[in-house]
Amino acid sequence: MRTYLDCYPCFLRQGLDAARRLGADEPQQKRVLDEVLELLGRQQLRSSPPQIGDEVHRLVRRLLGDGDPYREYKNSATRAALALYPRLRALVVQAKDRLETAVRLAIAGNIIDAGTGPAGELWAEVQRALDLPLSSEALAELRGSLTAVRSVLYLADNAGETVFDRLLIESLQVPVGYAVKAGPVLNDATAADARAAGLHRVARLLGTGSDSPGTMLERCSPRFRAIYRKAELVIAKGQANYETLSAEGPRLFFLLQAKCPVIARDLGVPAGSLVLRRGEPRGAPR
Amino acid sequence: MRTYLDCYPCFLRQGLDAARRLGADEPQQKRVLDEVLELLGRQQLRSSPPQIGDEVHRLVRRLLGDGDPYREYKNSATRAALALYPRLRALVVQAKDRLETAVRLAIAGNIIDAGTGPAGELWAEVQRALDLPLSSEALAELRGSLTAVRSVLYLADNAGETVFDRLLIESLQVPVGYAVKAGPVLNDATAADARAAGLHRVARLLGTGSDSPGTMLERCSPRFRAIYRKAELVIAKGQANYETLSAEGPRLFFLLQAKCPVIARDLGVPAGSLVLRRGEPRGAPR
Repeated sequence: MRTYLDCYPCFLRQGLDAARRLGADEPQQKRVLDEVLELLGRQQLRSSPPQIGDEVHRLVRRLLGDGDPYREYKNSATRAALALYPRLRALVVQAKDRLETAVRLAIAGNIIDAGTGPAGELWAEVQRALDLPLSSEALAELRGSLTAVRSVLYLADNAGETVFDRLLIESLQVPVGYAVKAGPVLNDATAADARAAGLHRVARLLGTGSDSPGTMLERCSPRFRAIYRKAELVIAKGQANYETLSAEGPRLFFLLQAKCPVIARDLGVPAGSLVLRRGEPRGAPR
Repeated sequence: MRTYLDCYPCFLRQGLDAARRLGADEPQQKRVLDEVLELLGRQQLRSSPPQIGDEVHRLVRRLLGDGDPYREYKNSATRAALALYPRLRALVVQAKDRLETAVRLAIAGNIIDAGTGPAGELWAEVQRALDLPLSSEALAELRGSLTAVRSVLYLADNAGETVFDRLLIESLQVPVGYAVKAGPVLNDATAADARAAGLHRVARLLGTGSDSPGTMLERCSPRFRAIYRKAELVIAKGQANYETLSAEGPRLFFLLQAKCPVIARDLGVPAGSLVLRRGEPRGAPR
């Protein structure tokens, strides 16, 4: 997905938020903001939002000299999600359609996102995700595809959301590779975050080789790119993976909440929707 | 009130919104945004938000060659408010405390504001303004002051909101001068907008001599500044008048909704509050 002009105010907001999380005082915040303004003035709209977001977050980390502004946010999100794990697990086990419930919960977990503003209370979010419409057509396609493949590549999104991913992975009948960031960016899950959520017990942890938001294949390691190319089915979580991989074809299934109005419009759904969307064939008209 | 860093994303959003209202295509919108980014990079935080907003809106009008992006918005807001006028008038006439009800309605009308995003349904807003807390202390001070003065200077805010101001002015026992912008900026009321709402029938219309948001005294005409200096009591409507005049002393009473979280924090109230606030003595500690 390309960048829209409406993304610009959000890039400013994100730069400011990251600076504050690092305890920057106001003159430091102002310096960050001034440099973000200059950076934005150099951007082209053909970049994806995560490409520009990546530059913003790199700039903040460089100026303020701390590699991980969202460490505390990530730790507390993982703890909050782990505390819900037994109740979430019971929901799946008791469900009439376990796959559907696990998919809904995986999408519910996507509300944990420092990039789009404060999340609602987590359990209320779970209730909402069980009630909202979800494409039965896309679910049937995912179900069908899952019976036809020997393994799944699962592209992680945020720390804490990992716990919700774990429930979906536990519902699958095939081995799963769980791909996480090679280093901290926003509140995206790294290997340490995935381990803290117990993902190493249910999937093979893979590093993408990149510490950019979403999955920018050109920045991933050759090893990860080979795994990606060979994958029969890819579950891609969250907005940034949609923004960076939306043109990658029908091997991909995107699971996300359309939290941002720009992405919601790109997807053609109301803001706040649960989205389970199969990638369109390459070159298909939009 | 000074500018906070959180105002910056909002300036970008306002520039984009004004450009779109003028029918700018995406390359034109991008050019506006790039120039706003450059303009923001030159700002100092000691400016008030309306000073910077003024530069943003001037830039859009200059680049796109139209003097009044909000003309349609203003006309339709005035029509919508006039349609409610008989019901609003009945609310005041039947009220136990006419002044309180008229003050509440004048604050309700402040929801009409293209600068802070879409307004809710207007009648729902009226109901909300009748129910929410309002400072009884400030109301008592306003009531007392109104009995002691021979006239009132009323600083208008937005077109449409003018109709709600008219109800308050009709409840006052003293002559009122109603000060409007000398030219279009955002959806602020000009003399034509005030006339369309019937304000010339209940007050003497005054031009501030300025087409900047809020009331920046240094940009007003000498004639208006003289009127302002002599005024015994000033009712100042809306956020921008608070932002530009908050340090002008206890002759001023501010009536507004704290729509923006930054202003709400500056005022020390929850966002969305009805605010009736007397200006503090000059030099008072904050």
